[in-house]
Amino acid sequence: MRLLRYGPKGSEKPGLLDDQGVIRDLSGEIDDIEGDVLSDEGLAAIGSLDLNDLPSVPQGTRIGTPVAKIGKVICIGRNYAEHAAESGGSVSAEPMIFMKATSAIQGPNDPIVIPRGAEQVDWEVELGIVIGTAAKYVSEADALNYVAGFVLANDVSERSFQRERAGQYTKGKSCDTFGPLGPWLVTRDAVADPQDLVLKTRVNGEVMQDDSTAQMVFGVTKLVSYLSDFMTLHPGDVILTGTPAGVAMGMNPPRYLRAGDVVETEIAGLGQQRAELVADS
Amino acid sequence: MRLLRYGPKGSEKPGLLDDQGVIRDLSGEIDDIEGDVLSDEGLAAIGSLDLNDLPSVPQGTRIGTPVAKIGKVICIGRNYAEHAAESGGSVSAEPMIFMKATSAIQGPNDPIVIPRGAEQVDWEVELGIVIGTAAKYVSEADALNYVAGFVLANDVSERSFQRERAGQYTKGKSCDTFGPLGPWLVTRDAVADPQDLVLKTRVNGEVMQDDSTAQMVFGVTKLVSYLSDFMTLHPGDVILTGTPAGVAMGMNPPRYLRAGDVVETEIAGLGQQRAELVADS
Repeated sequence: MRLLRYGPKGSEKPGLLDDQGVIRDLSGEIDDIEGDVLSDEGLAAIGSLDLNDLPSVPQGTRIGTPVAKIGKVICIGRNYAEHAAESGGSVSAEPMIFMKATSAIQGPNDPIVIPRGAEQVDWEVELGIVIGTAAKYVSEADALNYVAGFVLANDVSERSFQRERAGQYTKGKSCDTFGPLGPWLVTRDAVADPQDLVLKTRVNGEVMQDDSTAQMVFGVTKLVSYLSDFMTLHPGDVILTGTPAGVAMGMNPPRYLRAGDVVETEIAGLGQQRAELVADS
Repeated sequence: MRLLRYGPKGSEKPGLLDDQGVIRDLSGEIDDIEGDVLSDEGLAAIGSLDLNDLPSVPQGTRIGTPVAKIGKVICIGRNYAEHAAESGGSVSAEPMIFMKATSAIQGPNDPIVIPRGAEQVDWEVELGIVIGTAAKYVSEADALNYVAGFVLANDVSERSFQRERAGQYTKGKSCDTFGPLGPWLVTRDAVADPQDLVLKTRVNGEVMQDDSTAQMVFGVTKLVSYLSDFMTLHPGDVILTGTPAGVAMGMNPPRYLRAGDVVETEIAGLGQQRAELVADS
C-alpha cells in the first residue's frame, strides 16, 4: 500500500494511492496515519477496505508528510563509503547517528527555504524507515517486523552550519523545511528488498546522485536493531539511512543550492519529490 | 505559577501547585499543558482562575513531565567553562548543540534505567527553558517574550555511548529515562533572574554539583535568539542549557552511577528531583 496525507499544510487528511494513481480519502476510516494505524493490525485493517467505497481526491491536491506526529528523526551519517570519502571522512566501525528536528519535516514538493546567512545548502537523497511497532532490544532477524514501511527523504543540510559552527551535525540538519518526506509511506510488504533500491537526485535536471541502497554500509535490519539497543523506537519514528555520493559538498568547487534551483529526488517504487529553493523572507 | 502534570505515566492530567503546596486539578479548565496553553494569553487565563474552585489532588500522587507533546529537546554542550575543562574540552566560540530524543523524557522522580551494556551513566543538572510562543529570528532583547518558563532537568548521559561509539552525542543522551524533567514548569514571571539560580546534584546524599546559572557561557536570551536563527522554536520545545562542573566523568577515577544509587537534583525555586538507578530488565 502507498499511504499518504493530502491537503493544506497543518490540516492534512489521511489517504491512500490506488493502483490507478488516484488518491482515496481515508479520513472516514482513520483519524490520521500515526500511532496504532502503523502497526501490522492497523495496516491490515486499511488493507481490507474496499477502495471503491472511498471518495477520490481531486488531482493536483498538495501532498504532505505521509506520517503524522513523528516523534523523532534519527539520521545515519557516512553510511555509503563513497559519500564518507567525498565528505572527507571515513566509514565508522558502528553506525554514526545524529538527529534532525521534527520541526524541519515537510511535504515532498514544498519549497526548501534557504535560511538567512546560509550559503552551503546541500541535498541528500535517502531511504527512510518508518517504525510501525515499538522496538527495544530487537534482533536483526526480527527487526523488519517492527517496520511499517519505507519513505523517500531528502536530508537537506547546510554544510557550514553542520561543520563550521561549533560541533555536532544537528545545527546544519534541522533548519525549517530541511526534511522533505514522501510522497508515500510504502508498506514493507510492498517493498521486495529495501537493500536493492535505486536512489537518484537531479538538480535543475542534471543527475547528481545515482546509486543503490545495496551500497549501504549498515543495512535496514542492522540499523533498526542497533538503534533499538540505545532507545525505544516508537511508531511513527523515522530513521534516515544516509546518502550516497554525489552531494554538492563533494564537488570541486562545491555547487551549493541557490534560490530558484530545483531539486528532484526519487527512489524506485517510493515516488519522487520536486522542491524549489527559495530565499527566506 | 508552578504548573505540573500528575497521575500515572501516559495518562497525566494538568495541575498547578498552589501556595500551600497543594496540587490543584486543572483538567476541567485545559486539556493539557501544551501548545497554546503555554502562550502569554494561555498562561494569563490560568492565572486568572480562582484556585479555590479547583479540586485538590491527594498528596503523594506521581508527578510527570510538566509539559506534554514536547516537539524537540535541544541541548547545549560545554556551556560552563569548568565543566568543559573537566570533560577534556574547551568552550566553543558559539553554542554547541545536540539533541536528546523526546522519548527519553520522563517525570522528575521516575527511576533512571541503566541500559544493557552501559557502564558510564552520569548526571547533569541543568536549567531547562520551555518555549511558549513560536520563535524564529528573534533578538536577544526580545527572546524572553517567547519563553513560557523554566524547568529543572537532568541531562542523564552514558559517556561511552556518547564519546566512544562513533561520533555525535545523541547516542549517549537519548536512552529511555535519560530525561527527567520537572517537577514544575515555573512561569517566567515567577523567576526573578534565570541567570542567578543555584543548581545542585547529590548522589547518595553527597553533593557533587553546586554552582550557579550565573556561570553559563551563553545565557538564556542568547540561546533562544541563537537557536531561533537555525530553526523555529515551537511552544513546548525545551532547551537544556548545559551543566556545571562536578559530573562523574570529571572525577579521577570517574564514579559512574550503579543500580541502587540515588540522584537528587535541584534548582532554587524550580524544585527537586529524586531518582533511583535501576538495572534494565
